[in-house]
Amino acid sequence: MRAGPSQEEIRRHNLGVLLRHVHLGGPTSRAELTTRMGLNRSTIMALTADLTAAGLVREELPRETGRAGRPSLVVRPESSRVYVLAFDIGVDRLVAARVGLGGVILDRYEAARPRGVFVLPDVVGRLAGFTTRMLRATGPDSVCVGAGVAFSGGVRSSDGFVRFSPNLGVAGVPLREELERALGLGVPVAVGNDANLGALAEQARGVGVDCRDLIYLHGDVGVGGGVITGGQLLGGHGGYGGEVGHMVVNEGGRPCGCGSQGCLEAEVGERALLEAAGRFGTRIGRDAVRAVVDAADRGDIVAQDALARVGDWLGLGVANLVNIFNPEIVIFGGMLREIYLGAAAQVRSRVATDALRACRENLRLRTPLLGDDTTLVGAAELAFAQVLADPLDALARVGA
Amino acid sequence: MRAGPSQEEIRRHNLGVLLRHVHLGGPTSRAELTTRMGLNRSTIMALTADLTAAGLVREELPRETGRAGRPSLVVRPESSRVYVLAFDIGVDRLVAARVGLGGVILDRYEAARPRGVFVLPDVVGRLAGFTTRMLRATGPDSVCVGAGVAFSGGVRSSDGFVRFSPNLGVAGVPLREELERALGLGVPVAVGNDANLGALAEQARGVGVDCRDLIYLHGDVGVGGGVITGGQLLGGHGGYGGEVGHMVVNEGGRPCGCGSQGCLEAEVGERALLEAAGRFGTRIGRDAVRAVVDAADRGDIVAQDALARVGDWLGLGVANLVNIFNPEIVIFGGMLREIYLGAAAQVRSRVATDALRACRENLRLRTPLLGDDTTLVGAAELAFAQVLADPLDALARVGA
Repeated sequence: MRAGPSQEEIRRHNLGVLLRHVHLGGPTSRAELTTRMGLNRSTIMALTADLTAAGLVREELPRETGRAGRPSLVVRPESSRVYVLAFDIGVDRLVAARVGLGGVILDRYEAARPRGVFVLPDVVGRLAGFTTRMLRATGPDSVCVGAGVAFSGGVRSSDGFVRFSPNLGVAGVPLREELERALGLGVPVAVGNDANLGALAEQARGVGVDCRDLIYLHGDVGVGGGVITGGQLLGGHGGYGGEVGHMVVNEGGRPCGCGSQGCLEAEVGERALLEAAGRFGTRIGRDAVRAVVDAADRGDIVAQDALARVGDWLGLGVANLVNIFNPEIVIFGGMLREIYLGAAAQVRSRVATDALRACRENLRLRTPLLGDDTTLVGAAELAFAQVLADPLDALARVGA
Repeated sequence: MRAGPSQEEIRRHNLGVLLRHVHLGGPTSRAELTTRMGLNRSTIMALTADLTAAGLVREELPRETGRAGRPSLVVRPESSRVYVLAFDIGVDRLVAARVGLGGVILDRYEAARPRGVFVLPDVVGRLAGFTTRMLRATGPDSVCVGAGVAFSGGVRSSDGFVRFSPNLGVAGVPLREELERALGLGVPVAVGNDANLGALAEQARGVGVDCRDLIYLHGDVGVGGGVITGGQLLGGHGGYGGEVGHMVVNEGGRPCGCGSQGCLEAEVGERALLEAAGRFGTRIGRDAVRAVVDAADRGDIVAQDALARVGDWLGLGVANLVNIFNPEIVIFGGMLREIYLGAAAQVRSRVATDALRACRENLRLRTPLLGDDTTLVGAAELAFAQVLADPLDALARVGA
């Protein structure tokens, strides 16, 4: 139990809050900031002046307001100058992007990845290569304030060390350390679980804006979960919380990559769907999943049955999570987006049967607003976290 | 996103923090408070003076310190003067207590309750009757600062309205409103789910002190859950979160009072154990559960098998929760205490098989330090929440 903050801590906090407003909300008038932050005009002016001097925002006259009187200046994020690097390491692909303050994707590279092979130096090398190309396109006064990585597996929160990833086929690798070395930029690299970052992204800029109780389910080959409860990301003691894909829903069921049986991931993952549809081994990945959903849509009974079966287990898993978390929204991302769209009726029916009425009465089931960029955007938001928490300190740390 | 607090908000916050220190930690020297709160001596002295003037604490010379020099004054909670009322409404019993600041149980009444019958006016009337008797024993300057109720069911957080309680056989009753009316004390009554309050109690004063990620499982007839994640109680959108007893662990399994099948509560509740042991219908309640555990301990094979079966489902449920929450500690309270003590090997084995290594590596499985008072103590802590958040404001509200 700590005592309250000092005046200087409050000022730093307020600088971060103001910057977060324009980062998430876009250009905002001083008058609007005054209202939203509950501070007086002179304080807002002083905070804005500090952020402007630091090169994080700029003030401009607004376009025609249509109102009489002197218009309130608009505060804009310096999106093309201040940026982060965002990386997404998935089962089938690698993505690297340069994302400006305000969330603008300024530059982007993507490459397919072979499944089941994860050689740390190769992955890190490719991401560093993408970065070199992206940095060539930056202006002389641009500032990189951090880097974030979305990783499909369990990551130790303290040091970005990969503990497990059955679906990437890797465990026990110092991802953050190696990537920091390979980038050689002197900026902090933060690594997070992709589903956790997806949850943060959809809450910040997606379908879950303003939701304090949100679950994001991410299907890649397996199923990851990111849970926000009471406005906070569920991390757990070591940072491995949210592994809802390894909740056993079918005791004694299909074997799972984790060594257990009947995990949600084993019953609703890509392989479960493709096997149930009699299509395993021919094609894999998102296209194969989409093909099953399309076939079901065209009346293919085997595909319909497969989708219904998987949708039923998915619904049971969601019902359990609804009873446990009483969320406002559950978002189906990655490959689960296709499955949910194809089996929404089964999912909803199962939730209605197995979730307590009080826990589900205000529930919304949705797909991501950010589409396939959800986890990448989450990586960018993770990278921005420092500069939004304490803007001037974060700039000082990267030598800007 | 709000701006930082004002000076006056900080002072009020600090008064609450100081009071919380002595409430939870007992008599504490000013020097110790200075260190723990990170404030200077004069600030601590001013805060203590305010709390003393309000009659919430008093300062005393310490007993012999054995050190040279002037000893630091010790700040004590006014335990016999400032108190709350705590009520526990369980399936089989009603408990009412008067609990002094600092957590001292000053007075206590308990009565057995008939199962399956819940008549709101009767329950409220009995609790009000206990209260009248307890108030007769209070001194003229004593102050009641609140009342808290632990209830075995789902309670709407906004107004203490009972939404569901299959095991008490009641739903849709305005518990808080009726109890406030029956008590007629003009103090706020807060109602919470018993397992949620058990979690808070064990974190505040029990086996989970200093744990930020804790799960408390409470067995009554059914199974409730209280989850603290990142230091915060999981409430969910409407306050119904933590219903882990209605997580389906055995799809198509035993029917549950909620209408679903194979819920954790249906597979590990009192009835599941007694039926598996061939003892359902003869005796019920904690004694009957204890008798099965005792029989197993004496070598009764049917009882051993029953306990192993129930322990296995309990272990699967815990493994799921460990994957979802990555907790530091899981606490088995109420009737689950007996079951866990009788089937710890099965529970541990199942957790080892079905929970991810990273999620379980620092896990402790424990029974409550507060024993059968866990939920009652939680109700008291709920009642103290207001005075600990803003001591002077809370006193003003109760007219003290």
